[in-house]
Amino acid sequence: MTVVGGAGGAAGGPASQQDMRRQNLAVVLGAVRAHSPLSRADVAGQVGLTRAGVSSLVDELIGRGALTETAATASGRVGRPGRALAVSGDGPAGLGLEVGVTHLGACVVDLRGEPRVWRRVERANADRPAGQVLTEVAALAAEAEAEAAGLGLRVEGRVLAVPGVVPNGPGGLVERVPNLGWHGVRLADHWPDQDTVPEPENEANLGALAEYWSAERAAETFVHVSAGTGIGAALVLDGRLFRGARGFAGELGHIPVHPEGPECACGARGCLEQYAGEEAVLREAGLAQHGRLAPGGPAGTGPVPAGDPVALLAERAAAGHGPALAALDRAGRALGLALTSAVELIDPDALVLGGAYAELADWLLPSVRAELAARVTVRPWAPEALRASALGRRGPLLGAALTTVRRIMADPTLLPVGRPAARPGSAVG
Amino acid sequence: MTVVGGAGGAAGGPASQQDMRRQNLAVVLGAVRAHSPLSRADVAGQVGLTRAGVSSLVDELIGRGALTETAATASGRVGRPGRALAVSGDGPAGLGLEVGVTHLGACVVDLRGEPRVWRRVERANADRPAGQVLTEVAALAAEAEAEAAGLGLRVEGRVLAVPGVVPNGPGGLVERVPNLGWHGVRLADHWPDQDTVPEPENEANLGALAEYWSAERAAETFVHVSAGTGIGAALVLDGRLFRGARGFAGELGHIPVHPEGPECACGARGCLEQYAGEEAVLREAGLAQHGRLAPGGPAGTGPVPAGDPVALLAERAAAGHGPALAALDRAGRALGLALTSAVELIDPDALVLGGAYAELADWLLPSVRAELAARVTVRPWAPEALRASALGRRGPLLGAALTTVRRIMADPTLLPVGRPAARPGSAVG
Repeated sequence: MTVVGGAGGAAGGPASQQDMRRQNLAVVLGAVRAHSPLSRADVAGQVGLTRAGVSSLVDELIGRGALTETAATASGRVGRPGRALAVSGDGPAGLGLEVGVTHLGACVVDLRGEPRVWRRVERANADRPAGQVLTEVAALAAEAEAEAAGLGLRVEGRVLAVPGVVPNGPGGLVERVPNLGWHGVRLADHWPDQDTVPEPENEANLGALAEYWSAERAAETFVHVSAGTGIGAALVLDGRLFRGARGFAGELGHIPVHPEGPECACGARGCLEQYAGEEAVLREAGLAQHGRLAPGGPAGTGPVPAGDPVALLAERAAAGHGPALAALDRAGRALGLALTSAVELIDPDALVLGGAYAELADWLLPSVRAELAARVTVRPWAPEALRASALGRRGPLLGAALTTVRRIMADPTLLPVGRPAARPGSAVG
Repeated sequence: MTVVGGAGGAAGGPASQQDMRRQNLAVVLGAVRAHSPLSRADVAGQVGLTRAGVSSLVDELIGRGALTETAATASGRVGRPGRALAVSGDGPAGLGLEVGVTHLGACVVDLRGEPRVWRRVERANADRPAGQVLTEVAALAAEAEAEAAGLGLRVEGRVLAVPGVVPNGPGGLVERVPNLGWHGVRLADHWPDQDTVPEPENEANLGALAEYWSAERAAETFVHVSAGTGIGAALVLDGRLFRGARGFAGELGHIPVHPEGPECACGARGCLEQYAGEEAVLREAGLAQHGRLAPGGPAGTGPVPAGDPVALLAERAAAGHGPALAALDRAGRALGLALTSAVELIDPDALVLGGAYAELADWLLPSVRAELAARVTVRPWAPEALRASALGRRGPLLGAALTTVRRIMADPTLLPVGRPAARPGSAVG
């Protein structure tokens, strides 16, 4: 019996000089990002390559617009006279876009990761054709790119956050967004300019990545729960987003928390969304008429207010409103049950409550923690390993824009050559 | 605001010529494993490297004992006259060891993945000091290595499968094996020869890896459930074992399936083990007195039989014994609930029932499938994506032995130089 499978080698393919150079460009760019300002000699010391080798890599990074080289600053951090290297703040950039149930967003970040353009408009997107919504997103994107160009930035990649399922693969397909009524939407079919079609990604995934990339000392393995109209989660495992075999990982909202519980819209029983989803929580809190998903409301309650139901719920809870507190406690207990399953299966360093949950954390965290403490018993589990996201509802849009920046940092050869950044006042080259 | 974290570069460290050669050695070795017999010229064509480059790599692999080169076979697969390369069947080898609740095992596999030595002895290990058990494992290991040496094999690595928690890291520590009464056992403290101390690994993890490595077309992302006295699971994600942040991933047995259910030995309520663990199933089946974990049994039932309770349960179920069938149906439903959580979170290609569950699959699969069909509703889920392991209870020991082989295949420089395999009848060099 031969038990070692017959297919393929242990590694992917043979390594080439080109792979080596690509990796070394990334190492140099990363060193400058982490420790700038640095001279070329400092970089050589940091990364353990020869000074001549580093100089060649630095020249290429400058040529691709990823680094700028100025006269030495007075910071004293540069050890000897010379020019200081820095990651370019006015060259390559990433564009993030977002379609939410009630808004559209656009954001441009520079290669240092700083947001330079930020736009958000309120729009009721739920019952409109996907093509109409995407045409508006494209217009917002064009405005954001124009504003970025005025700042000297050039967009090198575009990612669109959607609150739905994006299958693995390069097809640009959004398989399903239940709360928008989208099914099988291919972005290219609706985008006016084929040169600027964004790549779709699930908003929970992007929120998790933004959290990971923005934290000072991020957990390498964590579950990021992103509540909006639905409940999604994203898994960052050993520092990388894990999307599942087909792109469906993180469907926390349909974990069965009470197997004989109420029927869910998905057809199953007792799913987490029936206890901790926005509609369920608002209903329990007596605020159902404010919910986007229950526009009918009880007879005689008048028109649906335009306000933000999550903000209203937080306001009621802060004021000690009994039904609001009870609804959040019930939601937190159910969330604690579902997260117990996540902890048992995945053994994360941390659990992060993002999206709308971040704004409700004061009232959710105690009951989630109580469930985890009672149920996670065969391993150490620190209560502080559960926390609220610092980025909250801003996470997905930021994550969408940062995706391009992170790709460039990992492989600077993605940038075209011969377009060095021309920063006013800097001495390029 | 700078949102890109400050620590470290995108890639680990600079790539070197040495890294490149290591990767290319692995690619050549993998090509020969997958397609042998091949000539040197065939290998060059397969992997896309120059003939001179491949010859240098092949010489090194022969020098390290990983490849042998013979006169061309008559198979016709070698395109031109010359010598045929093959992965060595009598050089480097991996030793697998296993401590179970009722047995010890040892196995040696050659570099082609074929088991060449296989030993298993029955031992009641539950209430004996860890040092005593490990001394016996070491004696079994020495016998297996001696037998392997007689076949021309030399053991290059040793891994011990244990039914408990092995934290991440190189410490050689077994943190906890509840069913053996082990707590904080460091293998080196009890091993007679410090040169042959094995590396411990959780048996569910090794069973999953054996399944992955031995399947013709393995799923790249799957959950492998391994039932013995307890219930463990292992996650293989994108072709790699995922151990969790601290090594605790896959504790499927303590997922809460009925939150208000019976109290578990772990202190929580309604854990899967209370429905699908060996003790619970045997009790429900009216076979509690046969269970290892319930040696007392009801008064008057006489001495505990020495037989295998899982085999007895399968026998009763096959004979249509009502309580046995009901117990397995109940276990399958609970398992289906816990696996629903796994599918929602991880989006695996497949779910594999291993260990003792493999022998009970005929009676478990229908109810597990029914639960999955009723509960996994927001994504495609094919019933055949749940299946029984082909290796069953042999998986962990095989996985332990194969671990060393797979490491060598991925990095042949782990092998010492200057020890080519000397296969009788082969024309080395």
